[in-house]
Amino acid sequence: MNSSTLAAYLDDFDRRDWQEATPADGTVRFAMVGVGWWVREQAAPAVAASDLCETTVLVSREREKAANAADALGVERGISAAEFRDGVAADAYDAVYVCTPNAAHLETVEAAAALDKPVLCEKPMEASVERAEALVDACDAAGVPLMVAYRMQTDPAVRRARELVQAGAIGDVAAVHGHMSQRLLRDINPNPEQWRLNPDLAGFGASVTDLGVYPLNTTRFLLDADPRAVQSMLYSAHDGFEDVPDERAAFTARFPDGVFASFSASQRAYETGFLRVVGTEGELELDPAFFNRNGSALTVTREGQSAEIGFESVDQMEEEFDYFADRLLTDRPVYPTGEHGVVDMRVIEAVLDGETDAHPIAEPALTSR
Amino acid sequence: MNSSTLAAYLDDFDRRDWQEATPADGTVRFAMVGVGWWVREQAAPAVAASDLCETTVLVSREREKAANAADALGVERGISAAEFRDGVAADAYDAVYVCTPNAAHLETVEAAAALDKPVLCEKPMEASVERAEALVDACDAAGVPLMVAYRMQTDPAVRRARELVQAGAIGDVAAVHGHMSQRLLRDINPNPEQWRLNPDLAGFGASVTDLGVYPLNTTRFLLDADPRAVQSMLYSAHDGFEDVPDERAAFTARFPDGVFASFSASQRAYETGFLRVVGTEGELELDPAFFNRNGSALTVTREGQSAEIGFESVDQMEEEFDYFADRLLTDRPVYPTGEHGVVDMRVIEAVLDGETDAHPIAEPALTSR
Repeated sequence: MNSSTLAAYLDDFDRRDWQEATPADGTVRFAMVGVGWWVREQAAPAVAASDLCETTVLVSREREKAANAADALGVERGISAAEFRDGVAADAYDAVYVCTPNAAHLETVEAAAALDKPVLCEKPMEASVERAEALVDACDAAGVPLMVAYRMQTDPAVRRARELVQAGAIGDVAAVHGHMSQRLLRDINPNPEQWRLNPDLAGFGASVTDLGVYPLNTTRFLLDADPRAVQSMLYSAHDGFEDVPDERAAFTARFPDGVFASFSASQRAYETGFLRVVGTEGELELDPAFFNRNGSALTVTREGQSAEIGFESVDQMEEEFDYFADRLLTDRPVYPTGEHGVVDMRVIEAVLDGETDAHPIAEPALTSR
Repeated sequence: MNSSTLAAYLDDFDRRDWQEATPADGTVRFAMVGVGWWVREQAAPAVAASDLCETTVLVSREREKAANAADALGVERGISAAEFRDGVAADAYDAVYVCTPNAAHLETVEAAAALDKPVLCEKPMEASVERAEALVDACDAAGVPLMVAYRMQTDPAVRRARELVQAGAIGDVAAVHGHMSQRLLRDINPNPEQWRLNPDLAGFGASVTDLGVYPLNTTRFLLDADPRAVQSMLYSAHDGFEDVPDERAAFTARFPDGVFASFSASQRAYETGFLRVVGTEGELELDPAFFNRNGSALTVTREGQSAEIGFESVDQMEEEFDYFADRLLTDRPVYPTGEHGVVDMRVIEAVLDGETDAHPIAEPALTSR
């Protein structure tokens, strides 16, 4: 590649290769269900900054909590979940963003579907595969679009990486490594009673459902393929993680053609994430990866040379909401679909079904040095 | 850490914290057994450049091959393996470097032990755990020092990384990822009949024994701990790999305290290697890692800040040979010992014992986008 082709390569990329709508097409007005930190600090600010979306209604179990959040965020109206199910204020929004605890997604999506509202649903989709499938069925039966909120799939660095992998820039993929961790109780939410650590509300896990799904789903997106089998090791030992099997987890997913992807996740480790893909002709790394608004860098190596491609910092949630709105405004199908999300649910359920067998290693003899 | 403590930190490091001998103490004269590309291109040049070592004898199955290699490398004498076993030229060397096909290590080490010569033996130690243990026993019975040739353990970047991990710089370790790959038939040796792909000569595997052992052993060194159990996935599909189970492999090792290490290796992927360790307070990455003379870089991240520590490029083989010679010249015990190497043999045997169980994932429904 000579210098002018490199310049052409950089010019060639459109951060929003998917966008067709303009603000002239109008906006999609959202009801956001759930007023936890993700809605308050990530989703609502992203929508406020967006051209194609706005938030007009907030929903929480208690109307007062919804109203307070609406006040704080400058949203017109806050209503209770019961009012939402009854169709209160349904004329004030066009679509529903679902960001409740995982185990409340189904009832929320069923209510949205009954109101004929398109749904953007947070991942993981629900607390079990069965409930995730019921969620898909509810949208199918009502004929409403359902998109699962995998914000990596509209991240410019991830889209560029996918383009490179699919174009054969690193040859045939041979190995993948991915990791995501954070210190949930120390940096995110110190309350040990939070829903993420309550199996009744979170579903079947803590680190795999909340974090491991990022390298898993991003690998599926880059490879355009789905895992066929998984092995897993799980560990929970520290205060606050007594009720979940996976304070941390390591799992290996077998993709078609013997591509093995080695993933790990931890809710009690330094906040970091990366994804590395090794092929026959080179390799590609996303680092940092997965955390919103941390910036993205993509390094591509081939024949002993590396190119690091930086990207203007984006709010991944703004990209995702605008993508969803763009699709609705131009009447095109959304992706990732519910069926796509159910595959991750199946993988997560398998990972958390219990550790798969391992070969024991005999205790080592004492060594001295 | 203020600027003066950073300067002090950099000054504080001794590339050879282990060295006590000087050239005034004399040199260790080596017989090298095996004249394949590793001896010709890596080991012999490293010893030629070293102050504490020299090569005086080369040994190969056929005397002519040994003599030709000796001529080409400027070594005094080339002898046959049979002559070596008979003690021919034993006065001309002080120690033996064993770099034959894995399955010939035992007989070579037994011969060296019978001649009362200290042994530096390449890894993996032999073609099975049983034979590796017999090798250790032979040296113990003869009272000769045995060191296994893990060149990462004398690599300055790796020693610095170990010091940081052991001092708690990244907190408690939570997850490890490591990978090593090369294109054996394309870049190293195009002959499909080579011993590395012949189970009778290589022992039980191809990528795990030859490459996977690097991230595995380096992790043991950094953590100062040994794996208790492993899960593995193995794949061989391409021409030349019909007789081995692991053209590529992924394996997860469980270390004490639920530390999971995710490793992969491939003999048919781009030449690359890295090791990444995530702790509760930060993370550390060696990248590039494992390949000799590729240079080393160590990145340490803590509380949102990263320090990349570069190292003068070293020949890892020269470091390793000089370490071994230093220990012999100052009459101190060597490390890594044979017992240390046997632990890797047990892990490798478990990894290659066959894939451990995996949870199948149901075929995904067709998706559209």
